[in-house]
Amino acid sequence: MEKTGNAGGGLSTLTGPVEIIGVGLLGTSVALACSSAGIEVLLSDAVASHVRTATGLGAGRRRKDGDQPQLIVVAVPPAHLGEVIVKALRENPDAVVTDVGSVKASPLAYVREHSPRDVSRYVGGHPMAGSERSGPLAATSALFEGRPWAVTPHADADPRATQLVDELAALCGGVPLSLSPEDHDQAVARTSHVPHLMAALVAGRLAVAPEGHLGLSGQGVRDVTRVAAGDPGLYGQIVAGNARAVTDLLTEVRAQLDEMIAAVGNGDAAALDVLLKEGQAGTRAIPGKHGGPQTAQAIVYVTVPDEPGNLARLFADAGESGVNIEDVRIDHDPGRPVGVMELVVAETAADQMQAVLESRGWVAHR
Amino acid sequence: MEKTGNAGGGLSTLTGPVEIIGVGLLGTSVALACSSAGIEVLLSDAVASHVRTATGLGAGRRRKDGDQPQLIVVAVPPAHLGEVIVKALRENPDAVVTDVGSVKASPLAYVREHSPRDVSRYVGGHPMAGSERSGPLAATSALFEGRPWAVTPHADADPRATQLVDELAALCGGVPLSLSPEDHDQAVARTSHVPHLMAALVAGRLAVAPEGHLGLSGQGVRDVTRVAAGDPGLYGQIVAGNARAVTDLLTEVRAQLDEMIAAVGNGDAAALDVLLKEGQAGTRAIPGKHGGPQTAQAIVYVTVPDEPGNLARLFADAGESGVNIEDVRIDHDPGRPVGVMELVVAETAADQMQAVLESRGWVAHR
Repeated sequence: MEKTGNAGGGLSTLTGPVEIIGVGLLGTSVALACSSAGIEVLLSDAVASHVRTATGLGAGRRRKDGDQPQLIVVAVPPAHLGEVIVKALRENPDAVVTDVGSVKASPLAYVREHSPRDVSRYVGGHPMAGSERSGPLAATSALFEGRPWAVTPHADADPRATQLVDELAALCGGVPLSLSPEDHDQAVARTSHVPHLMAALVAGRLAVAPEGHLGLSGQGVRDVTRVAAGDPGLYGQIVAGNARAVTDLLTEVRAQLDEMIAAVGNGDAAALDVLLKEGQAGTRAIPGKHGGPQTAQAIVYVTVPDEPGNLARLFADAGESGVNIEDVRIDHDPGRPVGVMELVVAETAADQMQAVLESRGWVAHR
Repeated sequence: MEKTGNAGGGLSTLTGPVEIIGVGLLGTSVALACSSAGIEVLLSDAVASHVRTATGLGAGRRRKDGDQPQLIVVAVPPAHLGEVIVKALRENPDAVVTDVGSVKASPLAYVREHSPRDVSRYVGGHPMAGSERSGPLAATSALFEGRPWAVTPHADADPRATQLVDELAALCGGVPLSLSPEDHDQAVARTSHVPHLMAALVAGRLAVAPEGHLGLSGQGVRDVTRVAAGDPGLYGQIVAGNARAVTDLLTEVRAQLDEMIAAVGNGDAAALDVLLKEGQAGTRAIPGKHGGPQTAQAIVYVTVPDEPGNLARLFADAGESGVNIEDVRIDHDPGRPVGVMELVVAETAADQMQAVLESRGWVAHR
């Protein structure tokens, strides 16, 4: 991922230096991506040892007096975001400032209030990437590879500042998506925060299940509840930062839930059908792989003895079919050491995949 | 899967013949499993062509006058279940009757009401297996392989009848789980019906999302909503058959949702934390792979160019690590032809897996 910079570029071409304030997982990952693209990276953190660690990883060097960053990336915890952004804007009157926080309206409001004449140089960002781990040692320049990266210009943003943040996202391997800060916060409420919260409620009912009832759990409930396994402390903070959009949407969900309870309780099949059909339409509204429309897919189920090497053999055999595998999943087995693998392929290719696998001795079905 | 029958077996050893009433996906799959275990299978269906199709697949032969099945498996649509079970009990005074319907209390109540003196010979069952497809042509003896199969004896059930249904489940490759009919219906409300309905509500909010907002969708919302893609007509019928247990549990969820809306709206971090922690506990309460406790797992992320053959190469290389892969997932990429593969492995083995993959040229991170 070489940077092919415009030699005569001004503000709107990312040439560096880039300063990273806060060298945790996200900050250090951005630093590594910039460094490996040949851009000079300056590192700052309230914890001095973090800077030493990030420096040791080749992420950049400590910022010194006289350094003049072109772009500053603020990657500190949500509670300090506004404050650190304002400080960076004031102390670097020529720099563009962005951040990587998961909500976008509140930091902008903070900048408008505390440093209104600098607001044109602040354009927020939000890479949709993360890890179960945290801290600089978990960082990697590959973290953003292929992930959406929201860039959130506002009415007073300098277009050259926006351009610079777009370039940063692309340089890190992300896919820049432009949204207003308010639209961003509503969008993540819908695509991330509310799904997480509802998953937590469904999972919460599992926590209080009578003995033995969870033995009937299949892949469906595992999928629905998986995200709820995430850190409650962290997720609570994220949701708190987007309280308005989240409560608005949760209130919509509650109205729908009331309709659903009435429909099921009254045996009103037509009313339930409306709700289920809207849900089905929603699953189809999620952008398809590669951003294109979703294509009709089918699942080929394959029985796989649960030992190292068998998956390799399966994928080698599946590869011989010439059919592209769109998604995969291992369905867990409650009683014995065998797994059922779900291979998601284009519907038109499912028979071919099944036939190839069966010809090589796999037990496969659709 | 050879049957090792007890030569002198009576009612409590499955020797056949087994009659299948209703040769759709489930019925024909049971028939195929029995036939391949060397048990004589008799086929009946209201649609004559279905019997011909199933016979052609080697699932068994049409039932004739004078046939005396040892076990009858009723695999008809939910609306006809009670009626067909009662008819089978009356016309076959020596046979045990089971079914494969997705709710268990209502068929039993029907039998108690319409044929009380035969109720000892009826023991319900529910294999947790299915397919996107339906009809005899989609049937396969592998359908039940490794899946839970609820067997639901009641207070008046003959233990020998229960034993026979357990044997059928095991012979089909399923894992028999004993539950009362009422417990079964509550369990599937919790592990299947309510998760599906909540997924539909979350997905329903996606259906009404403003233009562009869904571009931020990641793997989380795809997982939460995936099951909602299922057939609304079929799912509406399933839920309708379990209305009481479903509405009870949905009402609990609504109470929790009210608490959640208040917690987020009031900025009550402690109250929100309680709900999120209960959700996290719920994800851990789902039985682990192989029925054992869940072990600490970690995700290794690998960038995979989206072309046939790359997955095979990845799994071959991953196999060289000697680390067992517990689960896999392809994270979809909104912008370009590359995928991020998530390999779920034991936490203690994640570093080794990452190192092996990197040594073979993969871009991997945790």
